[in-house]
Amino acid sequence: MTDTPFQLRPIGRVESPLLDRGAAPRQGDEGAPPAWLVFDASVTEGLRDLREGADVLVLTWLDRADRTVLAVHPRGDADRPVTGVFATRSPDRPNPIGLHRVTIETVEDGGLRMRVRDLEALDGTPVLDVKPVLGATDER
Amino acid sequence: MTDTPFQLRPIGRVESPLLDRGAAPRQGDEGAPPAWLVFDASVTEGLRDLREGADVLVLTWLDRADRTVLAVHPRGDADRPVTGVFATRSPDRPNPIGLHRVTIETVEDGGLRMRVRDLEALDGTPVLDVKPVLGATDER
Repeated sequence: MTDTPFQLRPIGRVESPLLDRGAAPRQGDEGAPPAWLVFDASVTEGLRDLREGADVLVLTWLDRADRTVLAVHPRGDADRPVTGVFATRSPDRPNPIGLHRVTIETVEDGGLRMRVRDLEALDGTPVLDVKPVLGATDER
Repeated sequence: MTDTPFQLRPIGRVESPLLDRGAAPRQGDEGAPPAWLVFDASVTEGLRDLREGADVLVLTWLDRADRTVLAVHPRGDADRPVTGVFATRSPDRPNPIGLHRVTIETVEDGGLRMRVRDLEALDGTPVLDVKPVLGATDER
């Protein structure tokens, strides 16, 4: 496989009942429904140590974002002053990478399907990466 | 500006005395030297609310990583069992996006240069995004 510089390659997709931005909570711990991460079989080996109960960071590509936006009303609230996007969690930003802290609830299909709690990403959102939450420095 | 799907556009670069992976600490809070984030003038508006003293998450593109790697010895320690990369913070992974929690120490040049503490990225590493650290839900 060849990759050009700065070219992302999705490793999976989100399956979620959230179908549009209007229905999604602002953050995953503000009422997101259970969702699934469905991974491509080509990354099976990378997934093998992700366990039920683990808290992980999921990175996604927010493919419905507007990449030309540099300032927003935070949380879409017109009463809040316009703020540069890098001081907000707006999905609209030059590189719309979503960062989600979730808990793995179940692992199925040899690791290729994981049900997670607290994921506010929309159905079909491409998954880019999964990382462990770092503990204290003496536990790494 | 046009972007093809999944194509990242760097918004800046890291300036650091760290020149190669052998010299870099494993995580930023394990002895990283002060470094600078140097941003492209095209994103000035997005940066305007980032202040000295703020803790932020910096996303980078780890351009010297090996994207074909799916399992590693954690922290390069051969005594630790081989582990799937999605359960590690290895830079080698299919989409080598670095995630760094740093503190902004100084802001110069109208926001385009920021000195940060605890950034272990190598000199020249492309910067993709900056996000605020989320506080408790009632402070958002």
